[in-house]
Amino acid sequence: MSDKKRKMIAVIGSGQPSPEEVKLAEEVGRELARQGAILVCGGLGGVMEAACRGASSEDGVTIGILPGDNPKASNPYVQIPIVTGMGYARNIAVVKSAQAVIAIGGSYGTLSEIAHARQSSIPVIGLNTWSLSRNNQPDNSIILAQNPTEAVDKALNFITPQ
Amino acid sequence: MSDKKRKMIAVIGSGQPSPEEVKLAEEVGRELARQGAILVCGGLGGVMEAACRGASSEDGVTIGILPGDNPKASNPYVQIPIVTGMGYARNIAVVKSAQAVIAIGGSYGTLSEIAHARQSSIPVIGLNTWSLSRNNQPDNSIILAQNPTEAVDKALNFITPQ
Amino acid sequence: MSDKKRKMIAVIGSGQPSPEEVKLAEEVGRELARQGAILVCGGLGGVMEAACRGASSEDGVTIGILPGDNPKASNPYVQIPIVTGMGYARNIAVVKSAQAVIAIGGSYGTLSEIAHARQSSIPVIGLNTWSLSRNNQPDNSIILAQNPTEAVDKALNFITPQ
Amino acid sequence: MSDKKRKMIAVIGSGQPSPEEVKLAEEVGRELARQGAILVCGGLGGVMEAACRGASSEDGVTIGILPGDNPKASNPYVQIPIVTGMGYARNIAVVKSAQAVIAIGGSYGTLSEIAHARQSSIPVIGLNTWSLSRNNQPDNSIILAQNPTEAVDKALNFITPQ
Repeated sequence: MSDKKRKMIAVIGSGQPSPEEVKLAEEVGRELARQGAILVCGGLGGVMEAACRGASSEDGVTIGILPGDNPKASNPYVQIPIVTGMGYARNIAVVKSAQAVIAIGGSYGTLSEIAHARQSSIPVIGLNTWSLSRNNQPDNSIILAQNPTEAVDKALNFITPQ
Repeated sequence: MSDKKRKMIAVIGSGQPSPEEVKLAEEVGRELARQGAILVCGGLGGVMEAACRGASSEDGVTIGILPGDNPKASNPYVQIPIVTGMGYARNIAVVKSAQAVIAIGGSYGTLSEIAHARQSSIPVIGLNTWSLSRNNQPDNSIILAQNPTEAVDKALNFITPQ
Repeated sequence: MSDKKRKMIAVIGSGQPSPEEVKLAEEVGRELARQGAILVCGGLGGVMEAACRGASSEDGVTIGILPGDNPKASNPYVQIPIVTGMGYARNIAVVKSAQAVIAIGGSYGTLSEIAHARQSSIPVIGLNTWSLSRNNQPDNSIILAQNPTEAVDKALNFITPQ
Repeated sequence: MSDKKRKMIAVIGSGQPSPEEVKLAEEVGRELARQGAILVCGGLGGVMEAACRGASSEDGVTIGILPGDNPKASNPYVQIPIVTGMGYARNIAVVKSAQAVIAIGGSYGTLSEIAHARQSSIPVIGLNTWSLSRNNQPDNSIILAQNPTEAVDKALNFITPQ
């Protein structure tokens, strides 16, 4: 499939987000749908559910790549559940399936996704998420965004223009 | 996601099929699209490509779950590439994401998918594919179909009626 | 690591074997240990446990590649638990880590391992296990053995002589 | 297997380390072997090879969990290659198989391993490696060590005393 046609953006974040993170995720989902991007996520609750809910409210397409064996474990706004049965190894498929990743808050699972994305040179845009330094040198590879619209714009900028 | 709404059928088979298997796969893809099912496959060539081509010709939705790191490795009829980077472990996600599996011809990769599907109690419908026996007793768990339409009908019969 | 030095043989089979399969597995484990091979398996009960018990009784080395997250889920004769958290995807690592595979009885999980081994051109020796045919032609790629000693001899024959 | 008997420590770090990191890794490997721990790593070069070389020089046991399909890709000091064919998903098995993890330097692959370890509540001891903060709050879950001996002592402290 040509990357010129494909627009797939991953949204990653905690299953137990703060109320603010829920709002950010929902607005990111809405904006992705408005701009015609497919949302891919880990398929469960929290940030993943809020982003899918936002995308659904704007008739966007949502994909949830699930860790377990049961498609019914996906949140109600996932339209296409991908069932892996591979636990956290599914984190890798979430980010590798995207052309850019938007990280909202998040705990160690989100951090693993940020790392796998960067390992594959997939850009990561961060909203209130991890920051990294290595050997006491800051690692600036997470691109900061101030709000959901800016995060989506920055993510979509990485996709080859049509 | 409610299994009542979801209709996802996997089509599995060789990357180097016979001309007859290509025809079978293309017709299976067309019929799945006509009946409103989403086609999920391994995303590469041969049976996978023929099935996606058939589905696309009837405006069906196609998902390719890829073994490698590059979404561009998917055949041109895959609309939604899922990139795993996990090699043959992706075979498991192909079948687990489906409510029923249609096997067309196939070699050992296809056999692994049949086995993983049966291990998860996902029905497998076979067109000119493997047959199995265990300890000299035939294993009849692959449901035989005589033609693509029958294969698709049998596969869709396993989905909870709406 | 040089394949000349390495001698790793996988033993695969059901978690709920027949009493005869338990005996076969235990004797296979003993014989592998006597011949200096490392036994690799899925780490759980049934055939896996019996083979590890046999190997342990002859001071052999046993490796269990586990599907879950808990090393304590391994049978008591596993010396080196490898914890994957990847469910049945671990089946692939079990066979790929071996230079030859001995299949004893087994259900669909074992069948998936046979298929993944053959897909990777790793020889499979069978004791009372699956037999395969494809498009009504028998597939003779599972090498039959009449007893545990023959199975181990055939498996070790595939390893480059030292 | 009882965790009381098992002593498995993962050493993670870059395939292209600095000369200083090579020295640290080699000394960590030596010290692990002296203290009777099994070293588990990703099986390739750089920090992984240096740690295995150190362990081998003290007759320690070394396990390499490889991303690719070929056991010969492992460094020459790996005694037991585990072949996954699953790419970076093997990072998860590296850390989950250990009771504690020692991180030396490292890039994004190492960061993914740190994250997967912490997600599974496996302690991580760091030598010149990543440091983390979340939402501008430092995350102190990587335990700092000043030198290889301290790193190994801290790692082994997490294992239930015998």
